[in-house]
Amino acid sequence: MDELFRLSRLGRALRPSPIRELFRVAGQPGMISFAGGLPDPDGFPVERFAACASVLRDGGRSVLQYGPSEGHAPLRETLLEMMADRLGYPVRPEELLVTTGSQQAVNLIARVLIDPGDPVLVEGPTYPGTIHTLRNAGARFVAVPCDADGMIVDGLADAVARCEAECGLRPKLLYTIPDFSNPSGACLTLDRRRRLLETAAQLSIPVVEDDPYGQLRYRGEPLPTLKRLAGNAPAVLYVSSFSKILAPGVRVAWAVGSPDVIRAMVLMRQGEDLCTATVTQALVGEYCRRGDLDAHLATILDIYSAKCAAMERALSEHLPEGTAEWRAPDGGFFFWLRMRGRSSRELFDRAIAEGVAFVPGAAFYPSRDEQFGEPAVGDEFARLCFTFADQAAIDEGCRRLARALAPA
Amino acid sequence: MDELFRLSRLGRALRPSPIRELFRVAGQPGMISFAGGLPDPDGFPVERFAACASVLRDGGRSVLQYGPSEGHAPLRETLLEMMADRLGYPVRPEELLVTTGSQQAVNLIARVLIDPGDPVLVEGPTYPGTIHTLRNAGARFVAVPCDADGMIVDGLADAVARCEAECGLRPKLLYTIPDFSNPSGACLTLDRRRRLLETAAQLSIPVVEDDPYGQLRYRGEPLPTLKRLAGNAPAVLYVSSFSKILAPGVRVAWAVGSPDVIRAMVLMRQGEDLCTATVTQALVGEYCRRGDLDAHLATILDIYSAKCAAMERALSEHLPEGTAEWRAPDGGFFFWLRMRGRSSRELFDRAIAEGVAFVPGAAFYPSRDEQFGEPAVGDEFARLCFTFADQAAIDEGCRRLARALAPA
Repeated sequence: MDELFRLSRLGRALRPSPIRELFRVAGQPGMISFAGGLPDPDGFPVERFAACASVLRDGGRSVLQYGPSEGHAPLRETLLEMMADRLGYPVRPEELLVTTGSQQAVNLIARVLIDPGDPVLVEGPTYPGTIHTLRNAGARFVAVPCDADGMIVDGLADAVARCEAECGLRPKLLYTIPDFSNPSGACLTLDRRRRLLETAAQLSIPVVEDDPYGQLRYRGEPLPTLKRLAGNAPAVLYVSSFSKILAPGVRVAWAVGSPDVIRAMVLMRQGEDLCTATVTQALVGEYCRRGDLDAHLATILDIYSAKCAAMERALSEHLPEGTAEWRAPDGGFFFWLRMRGRSSRELFDRAIAEGVAFVPGAAFYPSRDEQFGEPAVGDEFARLCFTFADQAAIDEGCRRLARALAPA
Repeated sequence: MDELFRLSRLGRALRPSPIRELFRVAGQPGMISFAGGLPDPDGFPVERFAACASVLRDGGRSVLQYGPSEGHAPLRETLLEMMADRLGYPVRPEELLVTTGSQQAVNLIARVLIDPGDPVLVEGPTYPGTIHTLRNAGARFVAVPCDADGMIVDGLADAVARCEAECGLRPKLLYTIPDFSNPSGACLTLDRRRRLLETAAQLSIPVVEDDPYGQLRYRGEPLPTLKRLAGNAPAVLYVSSFSKILAPGVRVAWAVGSPDVIRAMVLMRQGEDLCTATVTQALVGEYCRRGDLDAHLATILDIYSAKCAAMERALSEHLPEGTAEWRAPDGGFFFWLRMRGRSSRELFDRAIAEGVAFVPGAAFYPSRDEQFGEPAVGDEFARLCFTFADQAAIDEGCRRLARALAPA
C-alpha cells in the first residue's frame, strides 16, 4: 500500500472472497466447474428479456432518470403482488425496498443493525457473501450447527446462552437461508421453522430470512417461508432476488420488513448507490408485467431438476464406495458432500489437477478468530454446484472428482 | 422503532438526505423545480440507447450472468481508452473499477480509508451525497471556504493546521469537485489546481477528485483534471460517471486510482453489491462502442448551454436589483445564488408558495456538530439547477423567485 493511503481498520481487515478467488482457477480452459453458484446461461430467457427493451424506448424519459431510493414504481407494484402471494399477507409499500442484488439488502441490514463487536447467529455452513458483509459491519459470529434438515434449532438457545456468557451480548440477528441453503442445499423442516420462530421470539432476536432459492423446488411440497409463518409481525426481515429465478446480471433484489428498519435502510442506501438502476428495474418490471416469469420458472425447474438428478446419478455411480456422503437436495443449486476425515482443501488441489473445480467447505464458515465458542469449521465438506455445467460435464466432472478422491 | 430492532450507532445517526426530502415538495403539480440536480429528460438519447439492447440479445449468456467485481470487460476497455485521453497517461486495468454510480465509488473510498472520528476536507459548499457517505463512515468535516473560482486553496494549510490542533489528526482525504462544482458551479482555476496538488502533497493528504461535470463545459477553455496534473502519481483518486453525460438511470460510474486502493475497493464492494449490473454495463459499453457518446455530448452541450444562458437572462431580468448575487457558471448544472443577510430556508417557503423550488444552501454543508473549527453554513445561499426545466419554465420560475425575493 502506498504510504499516502492509510487504510481504515475496516480496509485493513478486508479478506479476499474465497469463492471469487477460486473463479480464476475454475475458469481455466478444460476445467469443469462445480465451483461458482452460477445459473445456467443456456437457461437465461435471452430473447424474451431483450424484447422488454421496448420499455427503454417507450419509457425512456423516466427509465433513464434517477429513481426513488425505494425502487421504481412499476416494479414495486409487481413485487407487492408477488410478496402478498408468497408471504401470505398484504405487504404494504413502506415494508418494501428494491435493492441492487440481495447482497446489498443484507449489507444494508448489517449496516443499520450491527455495531462493531456485535455477535450474530448464522448457520454453519452459510453463504460466504453474508459472512463478508457481516464481517465488514464488525460482527462476530456464532455458527449454529446444521444437518440435512437445516439449522439444528434445538441448539439455538444454548448457542445464544454461550455467546452471552462469553461476551455479555445477545446476538443482534439470526441470518438463515431456510430453503435449499447455500451451500448445504438443506431445506429447514416445517417443525424446525416453527421452533426457530418461537425461540427467536423468546430471545427477542430478529431473523433475516434470505430466500433466493425458495421457488426452485424440484420435488416435495413447498414449505411456508419464515416470514409467512410469522405473519406480518416484525420479527422477520425477508430478502429475495431475481438473480436465480431470472438472471443475476440485472442486480435486482428486494427486502420486506418492518417499516422502521426499511426506512433506515433507505436512508443508508442514499449514501451507497442512491437507487438501484432504473434501467434494470424497468426491464425486470416489464418482464414480469408480460407474465414471462412464470413460464420461465417452469423452464428452469425442468432444466435444474434434470441436472440435479444427473449429479445425484453421477456421484452415486462414480464416487468410490464410502469416500463421501451426501443427500440430494430437493431444490436450489448445490450438493454438499462430506468426506469424513479428509481435507477438502487438499482434495481441491487434486481435483484441479484432474480438471474439476468445487468450493472447499471452509469457505462457508467464518474464520476461527471471528467465531465465539468452539469454532465450527467445514474442512471435511465440499460444495458442488449442479446448475452451471451441462449434463455431460456433470457426469465427466464427477468422474474426475472420483479420481481425485481415490486413494493415491 | 420496534423494540425488537436495536439500530446500530450508525443506523441511529442516519439523517434524511435534505435534497431527497425536497423532491416531494418539488414534485407537486404546477411546481417549477430548480431543486433536483437532474438531467433534462428531453435530452436523453432514448432511441439510440434503446437500440443498444441488441447486446442483450447477442450477448445474453454473459450479459445476464454475474460479472467480475472490477467491471464488465468490454466497458472496461472503453473506459481505459476514455481515461487515457482525459487523464493523459495510459491508465492500467488494475487502476480502474466500475461502480454502481459515483456515489458507490465515493462510498467505497470512504469505507476503505475512513475510521470513525477521522477528519476529512471538503469544499464548503459540497455535494450532500458525499457528506452523507462520509458521515456514514464516521467522518468529521473540515469545510474549506470557496469563492467563484472554487476552493480557496490558500486557506488549505491553515485549515489542516487548525484541524490537527483541535483533534490531533490530519485529514484523511480531501474531496473536491474542481469542474463546475455541485452546488457552486465554480471551476477551480489552473493556478489553484496546481497549488492544491502541491499543498496536498506537502501535507501527504490524498485527493478525491469527483468529475461528473467536467465534460459539460459551455464556454472557455477546458482545464486539466487534478489527476492529469498529478500525472500517474497515486496522490489523486479520480471518480466520474455516465449519469450526467449519458443517463443517471444506468447507475454506471468508475474510479481510477492507486492499484492498492482500487483492490481494497474491489474487496469491499464484494460485500456490498458483488458487481455493477452486467446488463447496464453492457448497454453503456455498446452505446460507447457505437460512437454515440460524442454525438450525444454535442447535443446536450447545445441544450444545456442554451438553458444556462436562459437562466442567466431570466435572473438578470427578473430578480429585484440588489437582492441576489451570482456568477453564471461556465459548465455543469447549477447557479449558486447568494442573498446577503437573508435566510434561504425562509425564502424557500415563500418560493414554494409562489410555485418554484430550489435547494437551500445549508444542505451543502455538514451540520454544525459534524464540523471542526468555526462551522461553515450556507444559509444565505440557494442552488438553482438549470438543466431540468425547459426554457419557458426557467423564465417563469425566475419570475416566481423574484416575487418570493421581493420585500413583503
